[in-house]
Amino acid sequence: MSQGLKIVLSGPSGSGKGTIVKELIKDKQFQLSISATTRAPRQGEEEGVHYFFKTREAFETMIAQNELLEHAQFCGNYYGTPKAFIEDSVKNGKDVILEIEVEGAMQIKEIYPEAVFIFVVPPSLTELENRLVGRNTETREVIDQRLGRAKEELALYKQYDYVVVNDRLVEAIEEIQCIVRAEKLRSSFYGQNIENENR
Amino acid sequence: MSQGLKIVLSGPSGSGKGTIVKELIKDKQFQLSISATTRAPRQGEEEGVHYFFKTREAFETMIAQNELLEHAQFCGNYYGTPKAFIEDSVKNGKDVILEIEVEGAMQIKEIYPEAVFIFVVPPSLTELENRLVGRNTETREVIDQRLGRAKEELALYKQYDYVVVNDRLVEAIEEIQCIVRAEKLRSSFYGQNIENENR
Repeated sequence: MSQGLKIVLSGPSGSGKGTIVKELIKDKQFQLSISATTRAPRQGEEEGVHYFFKTREAFETMIAQNELLEHAQFCGNYYGTPKAFIEDSVKNGKDVILEIEVEGAMQIKEIYPEAVFIFVVPPSLTELENRLVGRNTETREVIDQRLGRAKEELALYKQYDYVVVNDRLVEAIEEIQCIVRAEKLRSSFYGQNIENENR
Repeated sequence: MSQGLKIVLSGPSGSGKGTIVKELIKDKQFQLSISATTRAPRQGEEEGVHYFFKTREAFETMIAQNELLEHAQFCGNYYGTPKAFIEDSVKNGKDVILEIEVEGAMQIKEIYPEAVFIFVVPPSLTELENRLVGRNTETREVIDQRLGRAKEELALYKQYDYVVVNDRLVEAIEEIQCIVRAEKLRSSFYGQNIENENR
């Protein structure tokens, strides 16, 4: 069987990357990376589906044994990305999606330089502003802060392999599927599978 | 307007790349590179469609002025690939296909490192043998020579960006279209167009 890809997906707030990921994973070819956390499961959350739930001690052992791709504390709880789940999924031929902010993505680049880095952008800053205002969940001040941050983040597209402009959702999803298909046609990928077959 | 891509397509004899190219260029997005030659036009051949027909003197001037990507003599006539036609087509947003053997492709890589290099391979050497035998145009000796050459050429896939296995024609064409679409989503391509817009 061919190995899967590791796909790192980032984008400024309001780029719509969350919706894209939700649509993509309807195709069982894709597997969303599952985080580990020390926070208690909420109603309806399942072990190994929404999170890997860990005790503080178990989480700290994972940190000590370098089993996490990255981790952070938030509201007194640990959150992190277990490597083993990603690597097992890829070996089983799944294309694993890591939805992560820019700094996290750059850390992952150091560990998985072979991953495919995709940056999702809104069609324009004006469109982004409309989306943020449309949500009606943030004050104007927060929106301006987010726009400022988005402007800075947009300039980071060069750190990524691909840029997908999320103008129409259907098209953005097709484009990502196309990137994945093309990446599997890379000569390095072909060589890797030839060598596996000859073992 | 977005610039087009330069696409270099190679593959061992019997890989079916000729048929793939014929199908691809039915889509007006693609433009086949047109060669220059000193040989006389044959019945039905049109200037600027099948070839650019040149006098020996004009061809030698093109060589001297470095206007050709590569050139060779065959049966006393010159054949070559004019750069200007490729570059103008790309500027006009066309994706230009150069169908060329491996050595020629590697020369082009030095001049156009930004080109997309695609290697078309038959599903297996057995299948290639069947195809060559099926053509019924070559002796067994010639077929064995071609198979030997194909084996050597297959090993050159690492020099290319992508490998397309021509198992089913429709799928091979879809894959190349997908590669072209994905290449246009590259962050370097996005950056280039952003900069063009801001001029």
